[in-house]
Amino acid sequence: MELLREKIEKEGQVLSDTVLKVDSFLNHQIDPMLMKEIGEEFANRFSDQVITKVLTIESSGIAPATFLGLTIGAPVVFARKRKSLTLTDNLYTSSVHSFTKNETNEISVSKKFLSADDNVVIIDDFLANGEALKGLMDIVNQAGATVVGAGIVIEKGFQLGGQLMRDQGLRIESLANIKSLANGKVEFFD
Amino acid sequence: MELLREKIEKEGQVLSDTVLKVDSFLNHQIDPMLMKEIGEEFANRFSDQVITKVLTIESSGIAPATFLGLTIGAPVVFARKRKSLTLTDNLYTSSVHSFTKNETNEISVSKKFLSADDNVVIIDDFLANGEALKGLMDIVNQAGATVVGAGIVIEKGFQLGGQLMRDQGLRIESLANIKSLANGKVEFFD
Repeated sequence: MELLREKIEKEGQVLSDTVLKVDSFLNHQIDPMLMKEIGEEFANRFSDQVITKVLTIESSGIAPATFLGLTIGAPVVFARKRKSLTLTDNLYTSSVHSFTKNETNEISVSKKFLSADDNVVIIDDFLANGEALKGLMDIVNQAGATVVGAGIVIEKGFQLGGQLMRDQGLRIESLANIKSLANGKVEFFD
Repeated sequence: MELLREKIEKEGQVLSDTVLKVDSFLNHQIDPMLMKEIGEEFANRFSDQVITKVLTIESSGIAPATFLGLTIGAPVVFARKRKSLTLTDNLYTSSVHSFTKNETNEISVSKKFLSADDNVVIIDDFLANGEALKGLMDIVNQAGATVVGAGIVIEKGFQLGGQLMRDQGLRIESLANIKSLANGKVEFFD
């Protein structure tokens, strides 16, 4: 997605060979017009599928997921993150380890909002090691629902998560796929 | 806002005299079309003001704030919540106590995204005791920016936060203002 790549090149901060900061438009400050374009692009990529629910995880996935939901007329559910969950009745839960933050969170979704009838697209802001995506897929599987695919705003293609999950048969649509962050420079695939 | 009141009456769950659960369209599952209408209604209510930035707090404020930002062409910033902050360089921070969850969180906004030139509308999903709103106003004040007003999706008008802050001169636009949750029934003002 050309518009997104340009934004990353212009505003993204390469903090190391593995860390890209995009807090001026995605992770802290949000560019609503770009989020709308991203939501519509996801809708376009998955236009061959019937989607009944969009699943994401708080907080940075919410804006792009909501615009996808608006475009296709489907509700959005965001999984909640907690250090530990005490009450897990009526919740699907899974564990997600963040390598960047070096912490493990429990994520949860109320059983009310995912059922075996659902065709789900999972949306997330980043895909690197695939930990969040695995946790979200675990929750969809617990519900007996079907994962149609995953829509990722920025994939760090030089890390292994995306490859691993594609090898397992998951359809992943990444709007920007980064080949390298070496020498402080963002390089994209193709 | 009639559409919102109808949604609350239809899907809101009154858990006690003070707790209303609206997780089917606002706090966990999101109704994107309703969020769009809410964002446009906020834009309409503040159409007499020049707004340069929309400020909210993760996670449930993000969807309505983003649609306000889209409608008026302003960026959205969401304050981050943490149990405790270790690194506070380059951050405006404040403390917010949640009575429902009985926990205190540090909230923070990067100094990059709020400046003395900004005219800010604060958006939040609920207003009850006003703790989150006070924390967000504290952050805007630290930046030397101007608070144009606050847009609240659901105000619990039977609690004191809204009254208190209006008395201090804050303009608050609530799209649904609840008079009572007694006897398991939602009653609105006017």
